[in-house]
Formats: sequence, structure tokens, C-alpha cells
Amino acid sequence: MKIVFHGDNASTFEPGFSNLLDARHDIKILSDTLDGAGETEAYAQADVVIGVRLTPEHPRSAARLFQVPGAGYDGIDLSVLSQSCALCNCFGHENAIAEYVMSALLARHVPLVEADAQLRRGDWHYWAGGPSGLRTELGAQSIGIVGYGHIGKAVAARATAFGMAVHVANRSPISDDHLAGVYGLDGLIEMLGSVDIVINTLPLTDSTLGLIGAQALVAMRPHAIVMNVGRGAVIDEDALYDALSNDQIGGAILDTWYVYPSPSTPQPMPGNRPFHKLSNVTMTPHMSGWTEGTIARRRAAMADNVNRLATGDNLINRIR
Amino acid sequence: MKIVFHGDNASTFEPGFSNLLDARHDIKILSDTLDGAGETEAYAQADVVIGVRLTPEHPRSAARLFQVPGAGYDGIDLSVLSQSCALCNCFGHENAIAEYVMSALLARHVPLVEADAQLRRGDWHYWAGGPSGLRTELGAQSIGIVGYGHIGKAVAARATAFGMAVHVANRSPISDDHLAGVYGLDGLIEMLGSVDIVINTLPLTDSTLGLIGAQALVAMRPHAIVMNVGRGAVIDEDALYDALSNDQIGGAILDTWYVYPSPSTPQPMPGNRPFHKLSNVTMTPHMSGWTEGTIARRRAAMADNVNRLATGDNLINRIR
Repeated sequence: MKIVFHGDNASTFEPGFSNLLDARHDIKILSDTLDGAGETEAYAQADVVIGVRLTPEHPRSAARLFQVPGAGYDGIDLSVLSQSCALCNCFGHENAIAEYVMSALLARHVPLVEADAQLRRGDWHYWAGGPSGLRTELGAQSIGIVGYGHIGKAVAARATAFGMAVHVANRSPISDDHLAGVYGLDGLIEMLGSVDIVINTLPLTDSTLGLIGAQALVAMRPHAIVMNVGRGAVIDEDALYDALSNDQIGGAILDTWYVYPSPSTPQPMPGNRPFHKLSNVTMTPHMSGWTEGTIARRRAAMADNVNRLATGDNLINRIR
Repeated sequence: MKIVFHGDNASTFEPGFSNLLDARHDIKILSDTLDGAGETEAYAQADVVIGVRLTPEHPRSAARLFQVPGAGYDGIDLSVLSQSCALCNCFGHENAIAEYVMSALLARHVPLVEADAQLRRGDWHYWAGGPSGLRTELGAQSIGIVGYGHIGKAVAARATAFGMAVHVANRSPISDDHLAGVYGLDGLIEMLGSVDIVINTLPLTDSTLGLIGAQALVAMRPHAIVMNVGRGAVIDEDALYDALSNDQIGGAILDTWYVYPSPSTPQPMPGNRPFHKLSNVTMTPHMSGWTEGTIARRRAAMADNVNRLATGDNLINRIR
């Protein structure tokens, strides 16, 4: 079969890919813009396209499998995808995201960088000998996880190990003895008002767009912080910016955004509003899931699908 | 009864202490140096002394209970303690220390501060769109915990939740299905050679002094890091400094030390060797267990012991 890795993101998964395939296949790496010699033809003739974007501007392809090298497929215009082409995504990022989440949360309680700089000049401010350096514990906090898929469960497992009270709001019913509270999405507002940390793990769909809006942010406790490791637009941008700039909530840890780099604007600010001027926000460039472990797990999952396509077996994580 | 809180450390636990007592007692706060008016007399007449230091220079007391507001009692000269006086310590710091440990370990994998600073100027270096920001996962690492008491178990529980392989070296035998490896202290060297992270949780005793010396540090993997949240001198200072300054090991995260502040030298460098000039060390001023939660748990444990002393019940965590 002919397999193309389309663009920089997908190409990250190519090294070592052929070693995971049961048969020899023709593998090509193509640029995002497909403007290299022969790239358009290679794309059009591929049996498998691995990529994160599909728009009406892309060449028609004869592919039987369009494989997204990640969970979110909101970059794929389903109306452009041929009816005979399967669409699959993959996961494997949940442990990485949970590490990002716990690291960002712990960093708000344990002042390592400051304490290190101080001690190097003989300043024992945080020493247990006195009250000056007393800190708070993450384990005393409650967290409300919006969405209980791969990411939500990985965060919940770690938060539980730290002794946190873990609440979950999810569309479909769930039961888990370790959870302190379970809500449907119709109970989202209620949950948001009863936790110290709110974290969105939901992908972007018609029904999640703006799910956490002004009404939800008003319901949050004044000291509570909101995190986003799902998709940016699940939290309404204007409502979020207003809540943060007015100190209506305690702060935010944002990894997913409203504006992303594009060929014409490679270094944009990540919001339409000036989040980068706020001091109560930790902002990172959609990096939470991006680890060597995620790459390895996704590469293996995608190679498995290529092997399945070659032998006619059922594909894994088939969306359509 | 007469109860004295001796010194800054102990005094941190006094606010709210009387609310936890079943009867009214006479509570006084005394300075470390005991040079205020009437302090020597109050100390000598106390039924209960709460403090972290007892040396031949301190006044003799008639106390029936010397209560240490922490786990380590290496500041107590047992030859000075009256034979009729019970010595008790308390714990309650293990969750705090485990948060410090996991925060420091995660910070080596998740570059939050750097990513935040970059994104605020439009730099998406760590974006999942490309290979530039790919990071490693803590969960892929193995950890070797030296000592499996309160702290060791709290660290192990959290490390396990992150998917880490957890090895333990402990004097007394232990069995735990979640552990990847169990060693006696005679197997310490073997364990040190098979893990990515070594953490000492042991207190200082005659048999732990210098337990992790040159031979142990040589056995460590070249990339491995060593942590100390037990007592400084369990790791031999010269051997540790040499291993770090020669890049013989990957680095260190040190919270417990060889030199501490004293009335005559309130801001010392924490080592006899210049650890503060090393870039492969994260150094903090013995702060890992110092949280509001620790204070509250220890205050409750100490009040429990005072109540027990008043009614003649058995004391908790009695050392002697």
C-alpha cells in the first residue's frame, strides 16, 4: 500500500513506523502545503493518509483510511472525506496530559523555583522551622472533571492518589466508588460551584462549543481555578477572559486555545483577547499530551490499523 | 498541667491548640534562647515540653512528656532527658512530603515556566504540532525508595498512580503487590543500580549515617538522580558533592542538609561543600513537609497526647 504522512505533525510519527508493519509498504512524508515536487500526486494516490487537516483545498484522494495521529479530529472536514474512506483517531496521550495537569496543579502549592533561588543565597524563608514558609496542600483541594474519557480517567486516578476529592460531570452515566461526586452535563453548574479546580477534558463538537460559558464561570467559587486540556472553544473565550481579568475566579491553566499558528501567521498570540497580559493565567502552547510516550503509543496504534487494513481486519478507533 | 511550646518551630503549632484539649491547661510560648523574663522558670516547671531541641545547655525540667512536633528527634539529646519523662514524636507530614517529591520530579519533565514565558511572546516551541517540544514522561521512570515508613509509602502510592515502577529498600521485610522490587538494606546497592530515581526517606540514626556513600553513588546509573527528604547526613556529603560536581550521576533534589541556621549563623549555606554553585541540583531549605495540613495533623496528634497524659492513657508514638 501507499502511505503518506501529511504535514509536520503527522511526520513526527514516521521514524520507526515501518518497523511496526507486518508487510512492506511505500511510505512518503509530505509537507503541510503539498507544494513540493510530486506531493499532490502522492497524496491523491495514497491508500492511507495520516494527517490532522482535511479541507476542500486539499487534493481528492483515493485513500481507504484517513488516520488522525491524535484524538481530536476537528481539523477534518467530514464533507470532504470520501464515503469509501474510513476515518480513525487514536489516543495514548492521557498519561502525558495527566502529568501536565498534576505538575501544573502542584506547582501552585510547592514553590520549588523560588525556594531554590533563595537557598542559593542563604535565605531559608521556606524552612520548616517557622511560619514564613508554610504552604497549602493540593490533596486538600477538590477537582471537578468535565468529561470522563481517557483523559478524565487518567487525571482522576492521579488526583485520587493525592487524596483529592474528585467530582466528574459527564454526558453518559458513570459509576466509580472512588469519585466524590458524579453529575450529568445538566448538573455541570452545580458541580462547578462545589469544587476548587475545574478542568475541561472535552473535545470540540457542536454540543460542547461554549459549554463552559458566562453562567458556568459565575457559578465557580471565587478562589477556584479553571483548566483546559480539551479544546479551547469548549470554554467561551470572551466569558473566560472577562472572568479572569475581573478576578471573578482565582485563575486559569490553559493549554488549548482560540488561535493557532498557521503558515501565514506562525507565531500568533493564542487568544483573540489579550490573555498574555494576565498574571493569573498559566498559558502553554497545546503541549500537554506531547511526549515520547504518546508518540510511541500512537505510532503503535496507527501501525496496528495499517496492518488491519492490509489484511482486511476491523479497524480500531473508527469514527466513520 | 503546665505546657510550654519551646522555640519558633514548636510555637507554630500553638494557635488553636487549647481548643483541642479536653481540659484547661496553662500554655506558654517560650523563645528558642529562653532568655525572656521568667522563661527559664516556666521551662523548668512545665509538665509538657513541646520542642525540637534538648541539649545539656537547656534547663533541667520536671516534664513528664517531651513532645517533638515532628518525626525527627535527632535534636534531642537522650542523655539529658529525665528518666521519668516520656519522649514522643508525631508524623502527619507524609502527604506534604509526597507532594513536594512528585512536584519536583514532574518539574523535570514538564517545562511549564519556560513554555508560559515563550507563549506570552508568541513562541509556540513546545506545541504538539512538531518535534521541537517533545518531552519525556515521569511515568516511564523507575524509582527506588530507601526506607518504607510513612513517607516512603506516601511517595510509593503516588508514584504507582503515575505508572512508575516502584522499588523499595527497607530494613524490615515488606510485601506489597504493587511494588516492582523489594530489597533489604543489604540489597541497597543492587537497587540503586536498577532505578532512574533514588530517594532517601530515612531518619538519621547511628546505622543510617552515611548509608548512601561513595559506593552507593557509584552504583547509580549515570543519568539517575538522587533525592533526599529524610535527613541530610544519611547521604555522605563529600561523596554526594563529588558525584554531582563530576557529573557522575544525573543530578539531585535535596531538601535536607548538612548545615542549618543557628542563632549565631541565621543564613548559612546548607552544605560544607558549595552545593549552591552546582546547576544539576534543585535545593530547598528543609521545607518538604511544611504545610498547613501537616500543622493541623500534628497539632491534633500532640493535643491527643496531652489529653492522654492528663487522663493517664497510653501515649501515642512513644519513643522512650
